Amino acid sequence: MIVEIVCVGNELLSGITLNTNAHWIAGRVARAGGTVSRVTVVRDELGAISSAVRESLARKPGILITTGGLGATYDDMTLEGVARALRKKVALDKRAAEMLRRSYRRRGLHYRINKTRLKMATIPRGATPIENRVGSAPSVAIDAGAKIFCVPGVPAEMKAVFNDHILSIVKEGVGKFVAKEVNYKVAGVSESMIAPALAKIVDAHPGRAVYLKTHPQGYRKRTPRIRVQLICRGGDKDEVKRRLERISGRLLREINRLGGRLE
Amino acid sequence: MIVEIVCVGNELLSGITLNTNAHWIAGRVARAGGTVSRVTVVRDELGAISSAVRESLARKPGILITTGGLGATYDDMTLEGVARALRKKVALDKRAAEMLRRSYRRRGLHYRINKTRLKMATIPRGATPIENRVGSAPSVAIDAGAKIFCVPGVPAEMKAVFNDHILSIVKEGVGKFVAKEVNYKVAGVSESMIAPALAKIVDAHPGRAVYLKTHPQGYRKRTPRIRVQLICRGGDKDEVKRRLERISGRLLREINRLGGRLE
Repeated sequence: MIVEIVCVGNELLSGITLNTNAHWIAGRVARAGGTVSRVTVVRDELGAISSAVRESLARKPGILITTGGLGATYDDMTLEGVARALRKKVALDKRAAEMLRRSYRRRGLHYRINKTRLKMATIPRGATPIENRVGSAPSVAIDAGAKIFCVPGVPAEMKAVFNDHILSIVKEGVGKFVAKEVNYKVAGVSESMIAPALAKIVDAHPGRAVYLKTHPQGYRKRTPRIRVQLICRGGDKDEVKRRLERISGRLLREINRLGGRLE
Repeated sequence: MIVEIVCVGNELLSGITLNTNAHWIAGRVARAGGTVSRVTVVRDELGAISSAVRESLARKPGILITTGGLGATYDDMTLEGVARALRKKVALDKRAAEMLRRSYRRRGLHYRINKTRLKMATIPRGATPIENRVGSAPSVAIDAGAKIFCVPGVPAEMKAVFNDHILSIVKEGVGKFVAKEVNYKVAGVSESMIAPALAKIVDAHPGRAVYLKTHPQGYRKRTPRIRVQLICRGGDKDEVKRRLERISGRLLREINRLGGRLE
């Protein structure tokens, strides 16, 4: 299950807002066994949004999530950008307008649903609105080969939609896929020293079946310290476990041979 | 001066590492008067890196910065990806190898410069290596229409290269461009209420001369609170200042008309 994320917002590209949304979504997808293959961050510009969405769809992810740009102001143009990428028009959606009314009522806000506010209920034709149970602007789901979800940029609103509507689809796509991980803290072996052995192991396991990575932890008294991360993935639980044990043994022998020790 | 950033690293796409590098660079570029137009985050995969770089160069930014993937391990393949995007080969660079030796010596590490370590000195043909005064792997500068800089993913190493080698080029590109910003905290006016007035002001100032954005600050006793951010930009300092004052006056009148007040 491959997921792509397109984040929309000038504030993400000017050092104002740290992009914690992409980070949070990536963590949730990874823990569910899926893979975020790319994050693209663009400004609040129609052409940039539509090109990023079009390019993403061409890579055929299972799910494309856009964050941000669903509000009522002139610079909120994600839905128009997505519609343009899909060669669709946007139109006022009655269900979305009703969701908007409910969200104001729920929060005790006696707003008139004027033209500016109805912008938040103007969505690509054929899209399904999703109620925002935290803020105002509805999210949107579109089936376009990829399942597209356009969610708000406000973290609390984004998280609610992800948990209620997207996570289950990630899990469904992942199926009974299993990932097992183990980490070794090693002293006396540097990244460069162990690199050839890791490359050999990875070469022997094509695809995504084995993931091996060293994380340098600096030096103490000129002794290098690293963390070796090993992830094995596959459809069969027992087979994944056996592979993890086999490669772990090989790693530990190699660390020993290089004069390193586990910490 | 348009800057694009391509960040490379699985850890950025699995919820492990928050992408503070892109955030930090974007803030530095914005403060210097430049614009980061897009950030693309890809996994440690050759095809993904080269396609992201190729797509970025096609948008003709002034500067393209890649972060990460310069190390000695098998999954460090940024330079190979950049080379592929430019239809160049990588080759061992003597200057880069010497930088590597110096960096080990400086840190008191008596490493043999073996084949694995020399991977860090194997750079695209025609590229210029840049010494890493914090860690090991040299950075790389390539002139390919856009000025391409490949910098390490370790924040301290990335920052040193940016400050020493990239910031001056951003500033040079920006020239005597001026940006002035003012923020108003407003109570009693919601985003939707003021949206039409903001859209009118922005429509009257095409290009990037005026940036106006509302940031919702939530509700207190059902009274909406927003921050209105106004940035005026241009080549003439006095003209930018006059424009900022004129639009500020218009904003404050509009807030008043809508029954809002400054906080």
